[in-house]
Amino acid sequence: KQSCTLLEGGVRNLISPQATHFSYVEVTLQKPLSLMAFTLCMRVATELRGEREIILFAYRIPSHDELNVWRELDGRFSIYIGGEGVHFHIPELSSMQTQLCVTWDSSSGAAAFFINDKKSLTKIFKRGHIIRSEGRIVLGQDPDAFLGGFDVKQSFVGEILDVNLWDYVLSDTEVQDTFVRKRGNVIDWETTQLNINGEVVVVDVQL
Amino acid sequence: KQSCTLLEGGVRNLISPQATHFSYVEVTLQKPLSLMAFTLCMRVATELRGEREIILFAYRIPSHDELNVWRELDGRFSIYIGGEGVHFHIPELSSMQTQLCVTWDSSSGAAAFFINDKKSLTKIFKRGHIIRSEGRIVLGQDPDAFLGGFDVKQSFVGEILDVNLWDYVLSDTEVQDTFVRKRGNVIDWETTQLNINGEVVVVDVQL
Amino acid sequence: KQSCTLLEGGVRNLISPQATHFSYVEVTLQKPLSLMAFTLCMRVATELRGEREIILFAYRIPSHDELNVWRELDGRFSIYIGGEGVHFHIPELSSMQTQLCVTWDSSSGAAAFFINDKKSLTKIFKRGHIIRSEGRIVLGQDPDAFLGGFDVKQSFVGEILDVNLWDYVLSDTEVQDTFVRKRGNVIDWETTQLNINGEVVVVDVQL
Repeated sequence: KQSCTLLEGGVRNLISPQATHFSYVEVTLQKPLSLMAFTLCMRVATELRGEREIILFAYRIPSHDELNVWRELDGRFSIYIGGEGVHFHIPELSSMQTQLCVTWDSSSGAAAFFINDKKSLTKIFKRGHIIRSEGRIVLGQDPDAFLGGFDVKQSFVGEILDVNLWDYVLSDTEVQDTFVRKRGNVIDWETTQLNINGEVVVVDVQL
Repeated sequence: KQSCTLLEGGVRNLISPQATHFSYVEVTLQKPLSLMAFTLCMRVATELRGEREIILFAYRIPSHDELNVWRELDGRFSIYIGGEGVHFHIPELSSMQTQLCVTWDSSSGAAAFFINDKKSLTKIFKRGHIIRSEGRIVLGQDPDAFLGGFDVKQSFVGEILDVNLWDYVLSDTEVQDTFVRKRGNVIDWETTQLNINGEVVVVDVQL
Repeated sequence: KQSCTLLEGGVRNLISPQATHFSYVEVTLQKPLSLMAFTLCMRVATELRGEREIILFAYRIPSHDELNVWRELDGRFSIYIGGEGVHFHIPELSSMQTQLCVTWDSSSGAAAFFINDKKSLTKIFKRGHIIRSEGRIVLGQDPDAFLGGFDVKQSFVGEILDVNLWDYVLSDTEVQDTFVRKRGNVIDWETTQLNINGEVVVVDVQL
């Protein structure tokens, strides 16, 4: 089913073999992040389980976390926007790859997760907020300072790939089609520059 | 979905009805096994459960295990290469047939499982190793000597079929297509010679 | 997916609303049942659970059970041929319709279940046996006499439809295609005469 849209090259797969307070990947932005809506997708697999916070995506501006996605201590998932969070009970991550997407729209405040091809319920959250520019995107760690203040107990262990970000809400069908590798207009995983730090291994995978 | 690639003949299905220390199948090699990468696929079903080691594939050279795949006592799966192992938490085997594939590439060390059409996370393992030739492939038992030293508590009980081995890493899509019966270039299940020993029943299945 | 092979008429759905020792359906045979191999398929749904025997199919000759399919007390499934049984750990029945097929071939003794589109492992059983003619087929009860001796604790409660029987082993692909309503050459659910007894409701379903 994927074959018609496959690209020639491989896709970069980020592997964090163990918990650290120093391994992370900075994702460089192709345009400033000033978002009134977004769709964020990634594929993720991890053997972490039990009572463990896991940072999945962190976009921090100097003063605070502006767009973060977490797996919380109690197994729920959360979206933080402008320093405030909303929580969802959704299926757990596992060692098998999960396609995870998050959508949010400022005008309605509608926020939802997609796990593989299933959509969660929608929660209303941070209506009217605008996600501010001048931040930095970090995978693998939660920066408590602008780029630092990492906590090993929140670090990501496992693999993350195919991180794409759009500045609008894709339709449900389009989100489900991200399995066949659509490319974000804010982060495009194929071309974006990745700054690798610490014990992160980059492997090219042929899809 | 399978019909377009079906072959005329049946496929040999190896059935090991009970645990023994003497039943096994030797898979003869079409060319010497000197591998810098591989994809190994098989279909497998078993009613074994609980605290039980299960050998799924054993390639031993005179001195040690060179490429083995296990279901471990604690339910994890493992790949042993050059005598060292890496473990994965992946879904359990059952009485229903599971398509199981393993990929590994020496240059990156990337190792992963596929269970049915799902891919596990990737682990980095034995980078730079070359799997050595002059060994023998055994299904159903773990040889602790070159071809012997079998342990009934590690034996395979159930059925194994469609064992194919390639000397390179198939793309994710190609691995998923092995459900429609691709044929390995190192072991080709359709043509490879099988030497049956002990209480192993070979049944021809029309796919 | 089913639409291309649908027939104009509905399909008869047998509903047994409660456990009795007197409700059953006799399936009349279009030709005598002398089988060296068979494929038996049915769709079945039940809310029975826990420690409960459930008879799914009974073909009894005067002296003994010649071809029976059970859900056993402990949740396993069994095939009895010529009075002897073989047991399988396979997924449970539920209130949702399950497509259940059983195949057996005398020459190899190979017996397997299919649950929806998944195949179980194969077990070797009653090699060389020939299923004898002169019996009667009963759905809903297990006859301990030729047509009687029913036990309410073994009765079927729920629905059974699309019971088809072939005198040969369909290929794996053909069995999976029975979801789109192939018709058996020994029992053809569309045309076979059903003798309804007791509290069995027959509903026509448009597929």
